[in-house]
Amino acid sequence: MRITDIREATAAIGSEMSNAFIDFSQMTISVVAVASDTIRNGKPVTGYGFCSNGRYAQGGILRERLIPRIEAADAADLLDQDGRNFAPCKIRQVMLSNEKPGGHGDRAVAASAVDMAVWDLVAKLEEKPLWRVLSERFNGGAHDEQVLVYPGGGYYYPGKGLERLREEMRGYHDQGYKAVKMKIGAASLAEDLARIEAVIDEIGSGGDLAVDANGRFDLSRALAYGEAMGDYGLFWFEEPGDPLDYALNAELAAAYPGAIATGENLFSVQDARNLARHGGMRPDIDWMQFDPALCYGLTEYLDIVETLEGLGWPRRRHIPHGGHQLALATAAGLQLGGSESYPGVFQPFGGFADDTVVESGMAEPGEYIGIGMEAKAAMFTEIQRLVGA
Amino acid sequence: MRITDIREATAAIGSEMSNAFIDFSQMTISVVAVASDTIRNGKPVTGYGFCSNGRYAQGGILRERLIPRIEAADAADLLDQDGRNFAPCKIRQVMLSNEKPGGHGDRAVAASAVDMAVWDLVAKLEEKPLWRVLSERFNGGAHDEQVLVYPGGGYYYPGKGLERLREEMRGYHDQGYKAVKMKIGAASLAEDLARIEAVIDEIGSGGDLAVDANGRFDLSRALAYGEAMGDYGLFWFEEPGDPLDYALNAELAAAYPGAIATGENLFSVQDARNLARHGGMRPDIDWMQFDPALCYGLTEYLDIVETLEGLGWPRRRHIPHGGHQLALATAAGLQLGGSESYPGVFQPFGGFADDTVVESGMAEPGEYIGIGMEAKAAMFTEIQRLVGA
Repeated sequence: MRITDIREATAAIGSEMSNAFIDFSQMTISVVAVASDTIRNGKPVTGYGFCSNGRYAQGGILRERLIPRIEAADAADLLDQDGRNFAPCKIRQVMLSNEKPGGHGDRAVAASAVDMAVWDLVAKLEEKPLWRVLSERFNGGAHDEQVLVYPGGGYYYPGKGLERLREEMRGYHDQGYKAVKMKIGAASLAEDLARIEAVIDEIGSGGDLAVDANGRFDLSRALAYGEAMGDYGLFWFEEPGDPLDYALNAELAAAYPGAIATGENLFSVQDARNLARHGGMRPDIDWMQFDPALCYGLTEYLDIVETLEGLGWPRRRHIPHGGHQLALATAAGLQLGGSESYPGVFQPFGGFADDTVVESGMAEPGEYIGIGMEAKAAMFTEIQRLVGA
Repeated sequence: MRITDIREATAAIGSEMSNAFIDFSQMTISVVAVASDTIRNGKPVTGYGFCSNGRYAQGGILRERLIPRIEAADAADLLDQDGRNFAPCKIRQVMLSNEKPGGHGDRAVAASAVDMAVWDLVAKLEEKPLWRVLSERFNGGAHDEQVLVYPGGGYYYPGKGLERLREEMRGYHDQGYKAVKMKIGAASLAEDLARIEAVIDEIGSGGDLAVDANGRFDLSRALAYGEAMGDYGLFWFEEPGDPLDYALNAELAAAYPGAIATGENLFSVQDARNLARHGGMRPDIDWMQFDPALCYGLTEYLDIVETLEGLGWPRRRHIPHGGHQLALATAAGLQLGGSESYPGVFQPFGGFADDTVVESGMAEPGEYIGIGMEAKAAMFTEIQRLVGA
């Protein structure tokens, strides 16, 4: 069994929205296809992958470093022990050979797109949904039928007022979501509090609202927001300060009684472990949000979950960033706490399969073979256009 | 005043050597030229830059993200207050706009090549050596006439035995170096101890020998090496564990009486601050080795030095990685502890100007205008070939 072709392309996912840190007008992602020599229905079995939004396409690193190393490897160095399927950890090792330690940034994003395609391929070769493969290999066969999902929304758009924010949140409830998320930090504290109170009024409970500062705050502003928001009983306060400012996070955790969530901008086991060691995060109430499509891929994400278990973090305290089918499958198969979702943003890549129903804030991962990208028509058409055979 | 042209190209610096983590056979770097509309001697004043070895060329990030943002900016947004020269911090801000926090890896390397070219250009427009510009702007006019330099050598090569290692070190002494460095960690502890003892025997003092594990060791091996090497009185023990494993570093620092040096694989103020906060590093004996041509450039390096001063770290405890003229100029202008050097490796980019004399382990930064790349003939010829007008 061998890989016969690896393709990569850049997809545009630009939009007019912004969070507290960046605007998304020029945003791109990398899309990857990994084709095998196994033929089914007259076509090579092929896995597809992409990186999550926010860190741009990584064509240079893919074309110059990661893909050539896989292409140059002996076929056996990419297979599992009995040679019957590809081995994601061995492919990770090959594509990252001769890479120095540290500096987990764009390289991790590039590797994630390849790794997602590899896992899609592995599950397709087993003719199983990815969540079932994960459940069998890493969770003793257990899985969740339904996964808590919440829309990563509430972005700042030019001219967006309270009424449009309420309308957006009402729309999520109409779609079956219960918990929702909104951005904070690109306005003043007073304006943000008015926005938060409008949304709580709209959805009925602070416990169903998460707020996300996207790493914008310094310590004093994080503490000021924490103090002002303390009585809302929010679902969580996300990425209050710079994602690498563990000391800020620890100070906030000591002062803010509610839950803190962070991790989407930490891309390795080493960085995740530092957050757990130095960030003051509380395994009984806080949330870890590493993204399996940014942190070198699901393969490294599994290592992160395992490493954090060794530091006292139950799997239920992970809710991955990303808002795509990979995150949903991972949450179902490993029985994590939930998964982000992107209904309507980062299209056509955001969100789940076209027939995924969200009810009472829960979604089913579905019985699609592999990750199930073929069941998300607009996205799969775009993937085929970009990297199809 | 405005930038008229930005060019980038990939230079091959591959060689047969390896450290404990990677081999360098496929190594590349990015080279950048930034041309201004100021004409002198009939030619546009142009700054040149490149990233340090070890993290590969970054053409994709340069072409798709960083360079287009600078090209799209208003000229005034790149200039200092009186409009008479370019402002490196404003250019950094422009080229990194719409980039999310965290994930300081390849992007930081790409930015470093641009930033080096910008500083070369800034100093050329002032018609001064860069070290003098740094001394005037950031060091009250003080500078060092001579800078401690040491060769980053002692690599593992296929078939390299003790005799060739001794010969290499003898060569450095013949060239005027006093302190030297060698790699450890790609052999057994016993073999490495034999290599270390051979070098100490050759150069006469453990205090002149630094050893570098390149982040290879887990805690038990780091402690074992630390214990075995405790009596040699080495110059320093470099990058014992993964560069992000602050806890390992802190445990070693508590057990190992000698100096520890690390930092070359941390590429931002945030990561550097975490090392100072959580890594157990001792400001009276340890060394910080951040690289101004990997960590988003000299502009960010200046922020790192200042941030660490606020945490009790004197400037003399910094010895930048990189082994090039930028590091030497930075050390002289800011009065740091010294600078790495690469005589004979990473050619033609490693090492200083052709007429730089090393005597008793010290080098003079020279009176070349700008960084002085024109005074390193083989390198400058290659730069001209790659990005010359």
